[in-house]
Amino acid sequence: MVHENITVKIPEETIEKKLKAAGMGKIATQKLMGLVDKIEPILENIPLELDLPSLDDAVSDLDRLRRRLKKAGYDISRMSTNISVMRRLAESIRNDHFKVVASVLWKKCSSEIVAVLPVQEVKKSLGCAIDLGTTSIVVYIVDMEDGAVISAASAHNSQAACGDDVINRIICAEKDGVNKLKKMALSTINNLVKEAIDSIHADHRQIENIVISGNTTMTHLVLGIEARYIRREPYIPTVTEFPILKAEEIGIKAAAHAGVFVMPGPAGYVGGDIVSGVLYTGFHQHKELTLFIDIGTNGEIVFGNNEFLITAACSAGPAFEGGGIRWGMRAEDGAIEKIELDSVTFEPKYLTVENKPARGICGTGMIDLLSEMLLKKVIDQTGKFIIETDHPRYTLFNGEPAFILEFAENTGLDENIIFTQSDIRSLTLSKAAIYAGFNILLEQVGMDFSAVQQMIITGGFGQFLDIEKAVTIGLLPDIAREKFHYMGNSSIAGAYMALLSNSFRQQAVAISNAMTYLDFSTHTKFMEEFTRAQFLPHTDKNLFPSVHIN
Amino acid sequence: MVHENITVKIPEETIEKKLKAAGMGKIATQKLMGLVDKIEPILENIPLELDLPSLDDAVSDLDRLRRRLKKAGYDISRMSTNISVMRRLAESIRNDHFKVVASVLWKKCSSEIVAVLPVQEVKKSLGCAIDLGTTSIVVYIVDMEDGAVISAASAHNSQAACGDDVINRIICAEKDGVNKLKKMALSTINNLVKEAIDSIHADHRQIENIVISGNTTMTHLVLGIEARYIRREPYIPTVTEFPILKAEEIGIKAAAHAGVFVMPGPAGYVGGDIVSGVLYTGFHQHKELTLFIDIGTNGEIVFGNNEFLITAACSAGPAFEGGGIRWGMRAEDGAIEKIELDSVTFEPKYLTVENKPARGICGTGMIDLLSEMLLKKVIDQTGKFIIETDHPRYTLFNGEPAFILEFAENTGLDENIIFTQSDIRSLTLSKAAIYAGFNILLEQVGMDFSAVQQMIITGGFGQFLDIEKAVTIGLLPDIAREKFHYMGNSSIAGAYMALLSNSFRQQAVAISNAMTYLDFSTHTKFMEEFTRAQFLPHTDKNLFPSVHIN
Repeated sequence: MVHENITVKIPEETIEKKLKAAGMGKIATQKLMGLVDKIEPILENIPLELDLPSLDDAVSDLDRLRRRLKKAGYDISRMSTNISVMRRLAESIRNDHFKVVASVLWKKCSSEIVAVLPVQEVKKSLGCAIDLGTTSIVVYIVDMEDGAVISAASAHNSQAACGDDVINRIICAEKDGVNKLKKMALSTINNLVKEAIDSIHADHRQIENIVISGNTTMTHLVLGIEARYIRREPYIPTVTEFPILKAEEIGIKAAAHAGVFVMPGPAGYVGGDIVSGVLYTGFHQHKELTLFIDIGTNGEIVFGNNEFLITAACSAGPAFEGGGIRWGMRAEDGAIEKIELDSVTFEPKYLTVENKPARGICGTGMIDLLSEMLLKKVIDQTGKFIIETDHPRYTLFNGEPAFILEFAENTGLDENIIFTQSDIRSLTLSKAAIYAGFNILLEQVGMDFSAVQQMIITGGFGQFLDIEKAVTIGLLPDIAREKFHYMGNSSIAGAYMALLSNSFRQQAVAISNAMTYLDFSTHTKFMEEFTRAQFLPHTDKNLFPSVHIN
Repeated sequence: MVHENITVKIPEETIEKKLKAAGMGKIATQKLMGLVDKIEPILENIPLELDLPSLDDAVSDLDRLRRRLKKAGYDISRMSTNISVMRRLAESIRNDHFKVVASVLWKKCSSEIVAVLPVQEVKKSLGCAIDLGTTSIVVYIVDMEDGAVISAASAHNSQAACGDDVINRIICAEKDGVNKLKKMALSTINNLVKEAIDSIHADHRQIENIVISGNTTMTHLVLGIEARYIRREPYIPTVTEFPILKAEEIGIKAAAHAGVFVMPGPAGYVGGDIVSGVLYTGFHQHKELTLFIDIGTNGEIVFGNNEFLITAACSAGPAFEGGGIRWGMRAEDGAIEKIELDSVTFEPKYLTVENKPARGICGTGMIDLLSEMLLKKVIDQTGKFIIETDHPRYTLFNGEPAFILEFAENTGLDENIIFTQSDIRSLTLSKAAIYAGFNILLEQVGMDFSAVQQMIITGGFGQFLDIEKAVTIGLLPDIAREKFHYMGNSSIAGAYMALLSNSFRQQAVAISNAMTYLDFSTHTKFMEEFTRAQFLPHTDKNLFPSVHIN
């Protein structure tokens, strides 16, 4: 029935590279496809052959269509019809001899016929999963027939011009209007959609299904919803569970009537991206007590199992995604993602993404680096430089000490790639916020780290998270290493799952509703714990028995 | 709660005049208001006082609103929220200390929150009933608080430039596009809305409820729906039952989110205006066998009672509404609506609407005139002039005989008001089509005129229908005069009822679904009967025993 409208197939290895850059490998997406018996799009295209009208069967075109849908087993009692469909219906059903494809948008408690086309005009239906991060935005294009990811693209959120974190974005929206921030996010999204769609020579109007996964502030802003009360006590978001929207209502480059599912989120500071993460990692369905952290800009934590879910955000900041770090970057070509220092010479050995000349350092690289600097005594446990000031790798940058990761001549750049005292400070504050968060969340339910049976780390900050090094700097707790699982960008993974199946979409709503939110900003003990954690790995040595700093 | 936004009240007598001009007096509207216990608008404004948010009750603004609606007894399980509401919700609920008015659009099987305003910004809610006739359009403005009609306006449908009847309108839409006809109807509607709203110094955005009652072609065209298949065998309309629409989807001058109920109609040639007529006259609820005729452009007939309803259209043409008649006009100021001829001198005595100088003749006037000309022997039973050619009231116009109704000097006009041979022919064809229709419809259910227990005539063609004269010309059957009831413009009356109550809207749908449509255009016997009826009163004298032409 459906014509092929994609003339260029991207080579497997290119797709794999793009997916990896976006934080989830092809194997992961194929595994997720395996979970789905049958793809259930938000916008379902239903091929129908209508009865021919006659004087004895002179019901209206619309009644004829609805009667056929009913016969095909669809519940038409709550199915309405868009006026644009009515306007073209007479021609549409007659253009291919009463053979049509009806496009039905499945909403929460009703449905709507949003398009009816003659069979011959129907094109391959595509889906678009969007990870709308504060720092980065990732887009996957999915073939809605088999569920395969066929294109992908990622870039910085152009809202970054208004500040690194959600608070600054909200302040900017208050000053300049929500619309400005909306347009910025949309321009990044639409550029990515164009890039991903053009690379397969498809048409953006083939995108009929969209899932947006983002934190609460990001989803508010992209939809043009006032977000100012999120940052004011008692921190109220306008919406936590969104109705099914249409692409044209938002402004996303897609079919006007494309169905948009926005991942629900339980609170102002724990949003749909975290619900995506839980959905993807699936611990809400098992009895193992799991501690989950998404190391993005906000550092959201979830603790629980199939019986309860408690969650909080610890304002970790964008350091692990490269934000506010002089040479910080996402895990793109040329990002240092793995690094070791020679014990004596401090000479670095490193790997870059795609083995391209180094042009910065991504989250996993920074964790490695901080751990190596600490263990090899480039810095002390407070993060201060203790390396000799005449060491060839030591330099001053804007008056503050810095470590030279790579000299300009070995890069494609004009400058040395350095890691400054401020960068160390930023990273330390981020990791301290996260660790303090773990602590308070566990304490809230009367437990400690010994209760944690599984620890899941997600985030789009690189592929090779070295758990040992993350523990060394005190980002992750010092528990049995086999309990740790690093699962990449779970926000895009959850969005992709929600694109494939209605049961995943319903699960997402159930997860969001099941979450109890704990607000750290009004929690007196959080600040105390945060201060205690601003030491490498921690002021309380007993919490990190396996870490030995001599 | 509601501010007064209407600064000018129209004097009662002006309203009465406007309503009468539109075909239904004030007494009739007040009687209809009496049928309604409680006004149930399409768009309901619900005042709500929300709980104040706190850290212990930090649900989203939308959840807070929905929770309050639920507490107030509303079914929120099928209630969605428009994205425009979400965009402004945070401000709206805080602008008047969490006191808001939520506007809920009640659709067929779901509902939608389409606006939320701080109490202080809420204005008086108005309704607009529209009789969308092929020839004339009538608009009533209704106070949705008490249901009173507070303003009205009427005018010719500017689509008339594209032809007098629905067939010509469809042909025009095929040639020039549906949009042209849509814009024409909308321009008349919107001018009338402006006129009616301006006269009470209100704002068109206060109109939050709209009902459109029109024949199937008119409703298709005003909604921009392709109508060409209505005129091609097997005469299929695109839509017969419409979903609740929004004013902005149509282009009616009103609140963007105003709810629009379009009267459903059973077939391509029997539409919502006839359903309005049945709803208003109410014979579908009683056991008396009733013959119903709406003498508009199409001449639709219904026969039945509370057990069955059979219907047909007899393409009567617009003569009775003044269309195609040289001096024909609607029942507006200066229209001759009642006329008698002196037996000897043929000198007319007449009444005009509002006693203004004559400037034309409306439907009831024409029925009087034809009857008088026949009885007083100005014409014979074939409609031919038999008056002396030197009679001062006899003249030639474009080579054909004509009767001078009034000389120019007694009017405000430059010309004599005349009634031509062609006018007589048009009127005769119209009445013949209607009478043939009655005949065939009754025959179809195995009955004849003796079975008719009640005969209802509606149409916006004047106030003083002289039944005796209508029988004399053979427009109405020669049955007991007490069975006749003339009930004015029932299309606007039904639209007004549907504006007031959901049970009326549901009844309209039930009436439409209950109707069996008979197609005359493929009915061989109709043509035969039509020919037989082109005689005054009829070729078969026995059908009109009480009419004596010497």
